[in-house]
Parts: sequence; structure tokens; C-alpha cells
Amino acid sequence: MDEQRIRCSDLRARVLSADEAQAYIRDGMTVAVSGFTKSGDAKAVLQALAARVQRTGDPLKINLLSGASLGETDAIAAKAGIIRSRAPYQSEPVLRNSINRGEVKYTDQHLSHTAEYVRSGCLGEIDLAIIEATAITETGGIVPTTSVGNSPIFVERAKQVIVEINVNTPAEYEGLHDIYLPAGRPNRAPIPITRPADRIGTPYIPCDPAKIIGVVFSTLADTPSSIVPADHDTQRMAEYILEFFDHEVRHGRLPNHLAPLQSGVGSVSNAVLSGLAASRFENLEIYTEVMQDAVFELFGAEKIAFASASSFTLSQRMARHVNDNLARYRDKLVLRPQEISNHPEVVRRLGVIAMNTALEVDIYGNVNSTHVNGTHMMNGIGGSGDFARNAGLTIFVTKSIAKGGRISSVVPFVPHVDHTEHDVDVLVTEQGIADVRGLAPRDRALTIIQNLAHPDYKEALLEYFKRASQHGGHTPHLLTEALRWHQRYVETGDMRVRQLAKVTG
Amino acid sequence: MDEQRIRCSDLRARVLSADEAQAYIRDGMTVAVSGFTKSGDAKAVLQALAARVQRTGDPLKINLLSGASLGETDAIAAKAGIIRSRAPYQSEPVLRNSINRGEVKYTDQHLSHTAEYVRSGCLGEIDLAIIEATAITETGGIVPTTSVGNSPIFVERAKQVIVEINVNTPAEYEGLHDIYLPAGRPNRAPIPITRPADRIGTPYIPCDPAKIIGVVFSTLADTPSSIVPADHDTQRMAEYILEFFDHEVRHGRLPNHLAPLQSGVGSVSNAVLSGLAASRFENLEIYTEVMQDAVFELFGAEKIAFASASSFTLSQRMARHVNDNLARYRDKLVLRPQEISNHPEVVRRLGVIAMNTALEVDIYGNVNSTHVNGTHMMNGIGGSGDFARNAGLTIFVTKSIAKGGRISSVVPFVPHVDHTEHDVDVLVTEQGIADVRGLAPRDRALTIIQNLAHPDYKEALLEYFKRASQHGGHTPHLLTEALRWHQRYVETGDMRVRQLAKVTG
Ligand SMILES: CC(C)(COP(=O)(O)OP(=O)(O)OC[C@H]1O[C@@H](n2cnc3c(N)ncnc32)[C@H](O)[C@@H]1OP(=O)(O)O)[C@@H](O)C(=O)NCCC(=O)NCCS
Ligand SMILES: CC(C)(COP(=O)(O)OP(=O)(O)OC[C@H]1O[C@@H](n2cnc3c(N)ncnc32)[C@H](O)[C@@H]1OP(=O)(O)O)[C@@H](O)C(=O)NCCC(=O)NCCS
Repeated sequence: MDEQRIRCSDLRARVLSADEAQAYIRDGMTVAVSGFTKSGDAKAVLQALAARVQRTGDPLKINLLSGASLGETDAIAAKAGIIRSRAPYQSEPVLRNSINRGEVKYTDQHLSHTAEYVRSGCLGEIDLAIIEATAITETGGIVPTTSVGNSPIFVERAKQVIVEINVNTPAEYEGLHDIYLPAGRPNRAPIPITRPADRIGTPYIPCDPAKIIGVVFSTLADTPSSIVPADHDTQRMAEYILEFFDHEVRHGRLPNHLAPLQSGVGSVSNAVLSGLAASRFENLEIYTEVMQDAVFELFGAEKIAFASASSFTLSQRMARHVNDNLARYRDKLVLRPQEISNHPEVVRRLGVIAMNTALEVDIYGNVNSTHVNGTHMMNGIGGSGDFARNAGLTIFVTKSIAKGGRISSVVPFVPHVDHTEHDVDVLVTEQGIADVRGLAPRDRALTIIQNLAHPDYKEALLEYFKRASQHGGHTPHLLTEALRWHQRYVETGDMRVRQLAKVTG
Repeated sequence: MDEQRIRCSDLRARVLSADEAQAYIRDGMTVAVSGFTKSGDAKAVLQALAARVQRTGDPLKINLLSGASLGETDAIAAKAGIIRSRAPYQSEPVLRNSINRGEVKYTDQHLSHTAEYVRSGCLGEIDLAIIEATAITETGGIVPTTSVGNSPIFVERAKQVIVEINVNTPAEYEGLHDIYLPAGRPNRAPIPITRPADRIGTPYIPCDPAKIIGVVFSTLADTPSSIVPADHDTQRMAEYILEFFDHEVRHGRLPNHLAPLQSGVGSVSNAVLSGLAASRFENLEIYTEVMQDAVFELFGAEKIAFASASSFTLSQRMARHVNDNLARYRDKLVLRPQEISNHPEVVRRLGVIAMNTALEVDIYGNVNSTHVNGTHMMNGIGGSGDFARNAGLTIFVTKSIAKGGRISSVVPFVPHVDHTEHDVDVLVTEQGIADVRGLAPRDRALTIIQNLAHPDYKEALLEYFKRASQHGGHTPHLLTEALRWHQRYVETGDMRVRQLAKVTG
């Protein structure tokens, strides 16, 4: 055993195998684990639990809380049928299917809210927290790995804690993290962050060693991110955003180094952020929840002065680069609890520029980030609402079409709303950009349709809007047709009206 | 002239009649006025402008910004056709109709956002600010009357300012207000409010006297609020909320004096808040945007330790009482800019309990606060989103039916979303209360239907949900039927399926 990994000597006697550790988990427990968009998740114990249940057939279901999505552990646990409920985020196809069949109860939460719900007690008690760590300090402090997520509040509130020490993580992770939790109310003070680089807490998660019932050594790697590289469309979207930033700077509405940037999960957001590498902007700051590959590309292009987030979610190649160059990034990065990386107080104070990906937007600027066809969960709202709602400038990006053109991502009416038109400033597709700040709904509709819709759908959208407007109202709609595009897709696999359909009405 | 009303002697020479002052307003100008939910609005100059345009037929349209709704001045201006665009809130039937006809471009904003939009410049320049005041200080500082609203940011940004001194307002208003504006970014500091009673600014709106081009004396009174008194239904709703608070206190999830309370505009919110007068709770604090009559009833019942808001919106009787007893309220009240009363930073820090009224809610807990039938604007989102989104506990109340039962306010699918299910913790109708914190959508649906729906609609909602669930999905819906209830109301004036309709399908 590497004594540097467990510096609190009392805990050295509590080393367990993953299989021994999983035995602490009993049916009906609420288990809260580290992990944020596939990074730094507690893997070994949950996987051992899944294996046990599959081996023995024991009936066992847990309520599983985390920071955000776990890597393949979410799939393994879902396959083993051990998840009764899940919050606050997920993105694994196997788990997603269980959710959409109604087998797993998924509560889709703003990622900054989960800690408050835990604190208030309304999610019940946390029986066990399982936290991946790179080391345990002399006083029991837990040093996280590639994410912080909700681990600090889980450790504070859980009755018992198991630490998974991942021996493949470099010891140099220590010092990257900044752990700060707001005090309970009514004695809560302002969060003293006024710049992304401000450090306000400890480099480890404080934990009473008496609470740590086991320490498990693990060698399981994070599930790498599978980001699709930039393509022609996402490059166009990045160009529109850069032109827009330029325009705002020229009009004195943004400073030269812009404002701290947030960029959401997924391929589109990653590609758009990469686009900044070729821009004239310098000394940028990042205040986001997930650093995808693009952030490190921007470091490579010497565009970034500092980056703050709650996790790394990297391709295998980029993860290796970061691990090998930690010394270089030490003073340029910080990983925080998601409650702080996404906190409305800080996001609003800094005037963050929030860039997130929509599944679809409607002609008035309402955004659906989560529900395919209004019913089937994709990933969850994640932090998009934390940022969109409180940012200085809120941008949503989406390709104008999906599924080879059979879906228009600009629709008359989104069948699920995650972000209301009140929270959306700018929308971007590969067709163009729509700055809808200060516009009334009818003007928003014309701008959105003209600038964003794919040519295959533009006429139909305009026609919908014109006919709806004849019926009056602040936000004209035709209730009988508002959801028809989605219905048509469900029935025929294509939102477009085919010739036949045109003839028969 | 009362010299105490204009203590800055330079300005005494700039006294104008309302009619002289209105001549400064030219076609196409952006005019920003004081006023928040009918209180402390600048009345004289706009009314004189409307009269001039009606007299002369001059073509003149302005972009009109305010804190929130103006009193009858909104109606007078709308009737005269002088409003081209309007933001961020309104509640006057005449203006509302112009908006719904598409004649006035209305931008419905979160009330804490308008100041940020003004600051960023994306609403264009403010040509003229008109601010109702009770006095002007030696240095040009403007002492507001019954509301603060957006006046501080308007005064800071406007090219020119006109002050309307309302000589019927008691001089004792001075000292009630606390004016603080966050600095421009990136040098913004935390807002140092940690208790509702904290005073952090000046008792007047700082203003360079050189910017004040005119001072107008006015005697026009605020339009009184027309709140409908509590009825059996609203009393039931108040009882459910009180029982819920009791329950939360017993389970250690709320302290004995609860948390600072916010209560929205309208009759329902007012009645619910009044209900606290008969409760066991004491030493309550209010952190809200509008103090309606209920707040002063609670003061009368000695329930409130302190109240912070951005305006008074009172019945004639209560307004008289407050004016006559200002000395009594001096240390118990503060009026702040709406950017501060509604600020996400403070709302989240204090863990405000937000209680707002919905027009309707859907079975998953999404809330429509603004659009009748999804198309026609009622009042606007106001501050409901500022509070709901960032509060410690978010409650929405609504009667289960409207229009004599022809409308169910619990529907399969809201045709407009102002608050998403992510932001809604507890829902209340006269039928019951639904605590949906931590529940997955299918469980939310059953709880909402069982606890909140009116008996006339409960079966139909359950039936919709059950059939939808057969098609799977995280949030089951039937796209062809989701909006049918509203469509039926538009077509027949009744959401209920009549016998005939049942027979023919
Ligand atoms: C919306 C989101 C799923 C987009 O992901 P992405 O990888 O950038 O985008 P893609 O274009 O590759 O789309 C992902 C999938 O959605 C599908 N899709 C896109 N638009 C669609 C639409 N309008 N209707 C149905 N499906 C759509 C794509 O076809 C693709 O499907 P596939 O997985 O079968 O190939 C992702 O950004 C997300 O999960 N957002 C919510 C959380 C969030 O915003 N967090 C931000 C803070 S972390
Ligand atoms: C939603 C809101 C209009 C309710 O107002 P209220 O006075 O408490 O409630 P009432 O029950 O009297 O309803 C007001 C009107 O809406 C109608 N209404 C209520 N539910 C309805 C529904 N589901 N569909 C259509 N109309 C409905 C009522 O019949 C009534 O109509 P009337 O004016 O013709 O009599 C009001 O709270 C509001 O404007 N909210 C948005 C802003 C806000 O929440 N601000 C809070 C922070 S200030």
C-alpha cells in the first residue's frame, strides 16, 4: 500500500476489496457517488454490487445520486437492475432506455440545485457516499480526481463514506481542487468569488475519518468522452458566434477579452468553443461546469488565461495529455463543487457568456434540451439552466436539422420547454444567428425563422406563423397544429409534409 | 414652491408644467419611467403627452420602459396610441388588448433582468427618464415615492431626467428607500445583503443635477390596487400552505420563523399571505417585490419582524393607513431597486420561500403564468421567475378551476411555459397540496392529479395520463391530445367534454 495515498494512518486498517465494500449496500439505501459527466466517478464498488446482484439474483434496488452522469457504471448498474431512482443527470443509453420505459425513476435537476435539496433534507437521508479519490490527507480529507461534482455535500451529509482510491491518478491532482460549501441558512455569507481564478476553499473535501468505513483501491479508468469532431456546420456556427462577439465588442457591449465563458456538454458545444482558437480574442476566462477537449485546445493556442469548472470530460488522447502536463496547468485551472461552478450568484456576478446546445428551439425562442418528441428523455437539463437563467448573455446552438433532414430543429412549438424565451438571448444554427434580445414575440418569430431555419422548413414555418398571427395574441399559435410536426415524425419518421399529404390536406 | 421638496437650489429654476415637460418627448424616443405595479409611477408628463397627441393628432410613438406596470397611465397612453414598444411588465386591460392585437410590441422580461439589459446597452439608449419623487436632495438625489423599481438604473443611464414631485406624498417617505446598484462588470462585488433588513445603499437615487432638465409638480395619486378579498377557496389554499410549513418545521427542514417570504401579485397570493395572520408563526421576514395589503395585515397581527420589497401596491384604505403611520413602519420596512429585491444572488442566499400564482399548471408541474390559452398575454411573468428559479422553496398556487368551472387550471399540457417543472417544488389549489420535490415525472403526474385537480376534471386527467403512459417515455404525452382541452375551450367556451361530444367521439 502506498502510504502517500492514505496519509491518515487510522484509515490504513480499513482497506477493503470492492467486493467486501459492496456488501455494505442494502436494498432501499440512498447511495450518493462522486462523478460528473463520466469523470471521477466511483466505479469499483457499484460495479462489484452489480456483479453480486447479477450473480446471486438478490433483490436489491438503490436510490442513486451523483454529481452528473457516470461513465459505463451507469450502464452496468442499469443492466443489473439495481437503480430504483436516479438524480440529477445521466447520459448512458442503457440507463436512458430504462428511464424511458418508466423502470428507473429519474429526477432531472438543475445541477446547482441538488446540493440544496440534499441540505434541506427533502431527498431523504444519504446512507452511504462513495467517492473516488487520488489520496486521503492526514486529517481524513478526501482529494478528488477528475471531478468534484456533489462530493463535498454528499460527504458532509452521508451517514457513512467509502473512498475509492484510484491508484492510476497522478498525485499531482492534489492542489487542483477548491472545495467550498455555502453555510446553512440563515447564516449564509456571500460566495467570495469575483474572478474565475479566485480560490476560496480547501484543496480536499473535509471528512471526519470516523465516517470512513472503508477504503478501496481501484484502477478503473474514466470512460472517455466520445465527442464527434467539428464539421462544416459546427464551424459555421462558431463563425457566427465569433462575428457576433466582434460586433458586441465594437458596440461597447462586451470588453475585448469578452466575459467568462461557459460551454455545455456535447459535440456541438465543443466544436463551437474550439472555434475560438482561430479568433482574435485573447486572455479569455472560462467559468463552466465541464472542460471538454476544446478548453485544452484553447490553452494550446494560448487563448485562455484561466479556467474554472467542476470536471474534465476528455477524449482518451486529451486525458493523457492533461495527466502528463499537470504541472503546466496547475496555476491555470481549478475544479470546484458543481454548486459553486454553476451557482446563480457567481454566474450572474461574472456575467458569464453561456453557450449550450438545444435539441430544438421554437419560433419564439423557447428551448427543448432534454425530451425527444416531448416525451423521451435524452440526457437531462444538466447545468444548462443554471447558466442560461442567470448568465450575462445566453446563447443556444443547434443544427437546424437532425436525422438527415427528417427533423427540423426549429419548430412551431417545442413539445417540452427547458428554457423559456425569457432566458434566451441569442440562437445559432449553421444557417445563421438570431439576436432576439429585447424583441417582442412576433419579431422574435420572424427573426428566428429567417435566420435559423433550414431551407427545407422555412416556408412551412413562415406559413404557420402567418396563419397563427391572423388569430391574434401576443404569442400567436394554432393549437391544433402546434404539435403536428412532432406527431408527423412519430407517425412517419419525417417532419416534412410529403406530396401525398399535401394533396389530401 | 415648497423649498423642502427641491433642496437643490439650482433646480428650482427648472420647474415646468406637465404640458411644457411633455414637449421634450419626440417620436421614436425611448422613455423610461418610474413605477412598479401601479405604484410610484410617473403620471403627469405621460398623461400630458397622451392628451397632446390626442388633441393634435401628431404622429408620435415611444418605446416605454418602466419598473413594472403603471397605473391608469398605461391605459391612457395605450388609448392615445403613443406606445410603440413596452417592457418589462403591464397589467392594464386596454394596453393588454393592444398587445394581443399585435399593435404594441411588448417584451415580457424577468423583472431583475431589465437593469442588466439596460446596462449592457442591448435595449438601446434611454433618451429620457421620468421619475416620481417626494423630494430632491441638496445634491440632486431623487427621493422616490411608493416604489423604487428600475428608477436608479434609468437615472444612471438616461441622457436627460425629468422629476415629477408628487406633493401629496408625505415627506416621511425619505429614509424608507435603500438605493444600491451593482457595479459594471468585471469589477462587480458581492451584494452585501445577508438579512432582509440590511441597508446597503443611499436613501435617494444619486443624480447629477445637470441631467435634470425639468421638475414638474404633480398631485396625481397612485391607482389603487383592486384586490379581491379572500374567499373560501383561497382560505383553503392558505391552510394547506400553513399545514405544509408546520410539517416542514416538524421535520427540521424549515426553522420556526420559516424563511424570508415572497408573495406574488394578485388576489390569490394576497389572500394566501393573509392566512399567516391566524398562524402560530412569528417573527417572519418578508423579502419580496411587492407589498400588497396582506403584508400590512401581518404587521397588524404582529407577525412580521421586517419587510423588504420594491413597492407598495395597496388598496385605497391601506394606502391611507400606511401614509398616516409611516413613523411606525420606518424601522420595519425598506424599498429597494427591483434588481436587488429580485436578485438571484440574494434570493438564493436567503433561501426565500416564493409563493406565486399560476394561471394553470400541467400534470408534470410546468406552470403557465402569463398566456391565456397559450396565445393571449395576461400580465407578464413579472418577478415570478426571478423568485421561483432561485428560491429555497418554490410554491405555485392557483384555483383548480376558472370561469365558473369551464376551465380546469390543471391541464394535460400547458400551452405556454413560464416556469419549468425543474423550478417548481410545491403546488396548491383549493383541492389540496402537492409536494413534488424529488419526484420523477410519472409520480409527479399522479400526485398532481390526485391532490390538485377539481373533481370535474380528475377522471379525464387520469385517463389522459394512463393512455399516454402506454406509449412510454420519461414524460408521457399524447401529442395529438395534449392541447385539445384548450382547443375545446377556444371552440366551445368549455374545456369539459359534453355528453354529445362523448357520443360522437
Ligand atoms: C442537447 C444535446 C443532447 C446535444 O448533444 P450534441 O452531442 O451536442 O448534439 P448532436 O447533434 O450530436 O445530437 C445528439 C443526438 O440528438 C439527436 N437530435 C438532435 N436534434 C434533435 C431533435 N430536434 N429531435 C430529436 N433528436 C435530435 C441527434 O440526432 C443525436 O442523435 P444520435 O445520438 O442518435 O446521433 C446535449 O447538448 C445535452 O445533453 N444537453 C443537455 C444538457 C446540457 O445542456 N448541459 C449543459 C451544461 S453541461
Ligand atoms: C396569474 C395571475 C394573472 C393571477 O391573478 P389573480 O388575481 O391572483 O388570480 P384570479 O384567479 O383572479 O385570475 C385572474 C384572471 O385570470 C383568469 N384565469 C385564471 N385561471 C385561468 C386559466 N387557467 N385560464 C384562463 N384564464 C384564467 C381568471 O378567470 C381571472 O380572469 P378575470 O380577470 O376575467 O376575472 C397573476 O398572479 C399574475 O399576473 N401573475 C404573473 C406575474 C407574477 O406572478 N408576478 C409575481 C411576482 S410580482
